Amino acid sequence: MKAPSQHNFVVWFTGLSGAGKTTLAQELKKQLDLDGSNVYVLDGDVLRGGLNLDLGFSASDRSENIRRAAEVAKLWVDEGFCVLATFISPFQADRQKARDIIGAHRFKEVYIRCPLEICETRDVKGLYEKARAGLIRNFTGIDSPYEPPIQADVIISSDKQSINESVNHLLKSLFYTER
Amino acid sequence: MKAPSQHNFVVWFTGLSGAGKTTLAQELKKQLDLDGSNVYVLDGDVLRGGLNLDLGFSASDRSENIRRAAEVAKLWVDEGFCVLATFISPFQADRQKARDIIGAHRFKEVYIRCPLEICETRDVKGLYEKARAGLIRNFTGIDSPYEPPIQADVIISSDKQSINESVNHLLKSLFYTER
Repeated sequence: MKAPSQHNFVVWFTGLSGAGKTTLAQELKKQLDLDGSNVYVLDGDVLRGGLNLDLGFSASDRSENIRRAAEVAKLWVDEGFCVLATFISPFQADRQKARDIIGAHRFKEVYIRCPLEICETRDVKGLYEKARAGLIRNFTGIDSPYEPPIQADVIISSDKQSINESVNHLLKSLFYTER
Repeated sequence: MKAPSQHNFVVWFTGLSGAGKTTLAQELKKQLDLDGSNVYVLDGDVLRGGLNLDLGFSASDRSENIRRAAEVAKLWVDEGFCVLATFISPFQADRQKARDIIGAHRFKEVYIRCPLEICETRDVKGLYEKARAGLIRNFTGIDSPYEPPIQADVIISSDKQSINESVNHLLKSLFYTER
């Protein structure tokens, strides 16, 4: 039995709702699982439904959402896992805080870039429609800003790269740089 | 290679500071590790130093401390781990909430019972001395109550049972009931 590969860091996926963060993280996990890596997907929606159920979408609540997410990611990394964290995390300052909490040397920022129009067309969860109708407030891209990363380790253009291409891009850039 | 045993539940250690929760959890983990189980120790002090750094020791902060701990424990259990959670968790209502969050069928409550005088004599972290001196407020057992469990799955008397005896007691009661 081959010893599991060690990828002891957090891959922090940031981008608009509908950009493809969770899809890419799950596909990436499938590939890493094949290699025997210990991989954990820390999903923003899952945290919002439990640990962060008390938080809304104001700037301060978003900040606390990301702080807690980073602290939880740190627990998994401290245990030897590779964490794939999927959070809109629209503010640069909050992502910087996450980096500080986890440690810059084990924090890889991945910007899933996708034009708002495309995300809005996909609208998998029907959230953009609700935001446009005014049923949801402080929605990123509609009435709350998204600040693109200034130091992303990888940028994926999910409107141009297929899922397979994107996963291979991530594997080569972050995991198997020698290949 | 033997398939790892599956112990997919949370063992929730409750008791006074100094009762021996963390020591027992760590020793229990050593034994379970030998068996190839996936075991995670979720330590109250560790959470207090990160995720729950914003919380104090008022009743409402203690409640939120335990709510978050239970939500984090749930993430690990959902991933197939056995979680050994060590929290003073002095209030019955908060432990009940933890049970509700995690699910009663995968929540084992372990009361580490030890007289206050003994815990205070041990005073490993020097906290009792500070509490008696009035330097720490709302300290469990001194100026904040401890409500003993009413439905503990296991009770360990850490002033009477050695660490080895206690670990064996836990192994037999919760893990290897057939042995």
